[in-house]
Amino acid sequence: MKKAVLILAGLAFAACAPTDTGTADTDGASYAQSASDPLPSWNTGPSRDAIIDFVERTTTPGSPDFVPVPERIATFDNDGTLWSEQPAYFQLAFAIDRSKMLAAHNPELAKNPLLAALASGDKEALANVTEHDLVQLVAETHSGMTLEQFQGIVANWLDVARHPRFGVPYPALIYQPMLELLDYLRAHDYKTFIVSGGGVDFMRVFVEDAYGIPPEQVVGSMGETEFEIREGVPVLIKQRAMNFVDDKEGKPVGIARFIGRRPVMAWGNSDGDLAMLQYTMGGDGPRFAGYVHHDDADREWAYDRGSHIGGFDVGWDEAVEKGWTVVSMKDDWEKIYPGDGLP
Amino acid sequence: MKKAVLILAGLAFAACAPTDTGTADTDGASYAQSASDPLPSWNTGPSRDAIIDFVERTTTPGSPDFVPVPERIATFDNDGTLWSEQPAYFQLAFAIDRSKMLAAHNPELAKNPLLAALASGDKEALANVTEHDLVQLVAETHSGMTLEQFQGIVANWLDVARHPRFGVPYPALIYQPMLELLDYLRAHDYKTFIVSGGGVDFMRVFVEDAYGIPPEQVVGSMGETEFEIREGVPVLIKQRAMNFVDDKEGKPVGIARFIGRRPVMAWGNSDGDLAMLQYTMGGDGPRFAGYVHHDDADREWAYDRGSHIGGFDVGWDEAVEKGWTVVSMKDDWEKIYPGDGLP
Repeated sequence: MKKAVLILAGLAFAACAPTDTGTADTDGASYAQSASDPLPSWNTGPSRDAIIDFVERTTTPGSPDFVPVPERIATFDNDGTLWSEQPAYFQLAFAIDRSKMLAAHNPELAKNPLLAALASGDKEALANVTEHDLVQLVAETHSGMTLEQFQGIVANWLDVARHPRFGVPYPALIYQPMLELLDYLRAHDYKTFIVSGGGVDFMRVFVEDAYGIPPEQVVGSMGETEFEIREGVPVLIKQRAMNFVDDKEGKPVGIARFIGRRPVMAWGNSDGDLAMLQYTMGGDGPRFAGYVHHDDADREWAYDRGSHIGGFDVGWDEAVEKGWTVVSMKDDWEKIYPGDGLP
Repeated sequence: MKKAVLILAGLAFAACAPTDTGTADTDGASYAQSASDPLPSWNTGPSRDAIIDFVERTTTPGSPDFVPVPERIATFDNDGTLWSEQPAYFQLAFAIDRSKMLAAHNPELAKNPLLAALASGDKEALANVTEHDLVQLVAETHSGMTLEQFQGIVANWLDVARHPRFGVPYPALIYQPMLELLDYLRAHDYKTFIVSGGGVDFMRVFVEDAYGIPPEQVVGSMGETEFEIREGVPVLIKQRAMNFVDDKEGKPVGIARFIGRRPVMAWGNSDGDLAMLQYTMGGDGPRFAGYVHHDDADREWAYDRGSHIGGFDVGWDEAVEKGWTVVSMKDDWEKIYPGDGLP
């Protein structure tokens, strides 16, 4: 419950901020790489060197570390690794916005203490919101409709919602250096997957445009769905019950279930990604584990140990101990976001 | 329970047949297609015409039925659609063989009435076997080890086990015309997936060699797995509990969960595939639903309405009513299996 409340403190800010001040242009697709420099937004340094060295070693024929093409699997966490996750997970901002709209026609939802607290801006009321209230809100906004209806609602929200700090659509806040990394890997026949605690039906709406990753290469948390024939049309109805939570030890489980191969490379930004990175490094032959460290309060956010979002503690220690790559957003990234006018 | 017993009647034959009489050569990979005829093992006729017409319509630029490459998803059932499933599902033959070996060191398993009945060949004992006994046998042979250990056992079994009727390794009994269809679709930028009631961890061992389908494009039934660090090595342990049964209404659910797009084309052979075919046809734009009809007792097997394996009844009626393609193995297929010396 304590953690839920802390996350809500972030949400209070996100949900109450002005929602239509966007000026910067979103262009997640414009990340074609230069032939001479595959990673132009990465500053020279050990992180960049480690990536290029690994990709060259594993893809150059005759190299002792050569990895056959079908085994070139790279997995990426999403929130905090491929796009920002502050001041609250973007999917939670969606759930809040959506539930405000639904509350007008749904008396039970209108009574949810979280909505009331957000409406009043009362910090004490917010502190009394329970995890149950939060789960109810997400379940309510993510179920009872067909998959296509849900994804239409998400697509619309992604068009109109604006991030409270930067005033741009949420998909504008993807990381330019990671887009270059994804492209660089694919140019070397790596298959790129998202493995995220976020909802798979939510992510699949934007990941293809944003990252060039098709829906079938997204592993995420998911609810139950039921097959029905509604007015002659076969559809899938999203249920309130959860089927799978793709976080922490769930991540390697999700990888085995959806991908069926141990990745060669994996990237995350928090302790929630540690099991995925451990599982990746546990295979034979060359393996790469990378962490994105949020240490840039000016251009993005700075948080790690003890953070209620993206806490980075035991994972950081293990990364240092084992010599994994820990990317400093401040030092290693020349630019954070793709759009002009953004840092 | 009745159905379990009927399936077991088939198994009794499978499990008691000689197991090392193979002579024919397995060569699932040798199905490169001729440039002039993409489907050489398909006889001229309406099924072949329908396939070629559909692929040309959906992949020729400027065609009113053109489907963009990312949406070209084709899903295939496995048992009875891509390989044979008689006299019992091949994975069940594996479970029986495996449990016989395990029974020597596992007193509880040795007491399983199914093993006793198979050992004695007693038909009456076989009739008294319950579905619970069957489920216990499968759970026992598919859990309690790492994913890699399980897949090593399956790989070894696929090498040494021989099919009771044809005396060849089970992967030799894949359908040559379907291999050509898979190749033909991929040559036109269709992405081919398996969506099967079989176990995903079992199928992933052989589908890449057999069909050219990578593990990450296989949707199947699956048990729970748990992440563990065993002697310093991060592994996934297969559990007895099921997570997902990818059959009947489960198939569209599995498609939405793993692929996240409604297929453009789907193939099956039984009522267990009907929901997948309905879901496929329920999308907008051009769609193709195909059934393989087992009507060739001489070269393969003949079974449909009322069969305890691959029952084809309401699905057949709906296919006829809606004008879906129903392939006659007898009339439409010039050859059944790839190997020399096989029909």
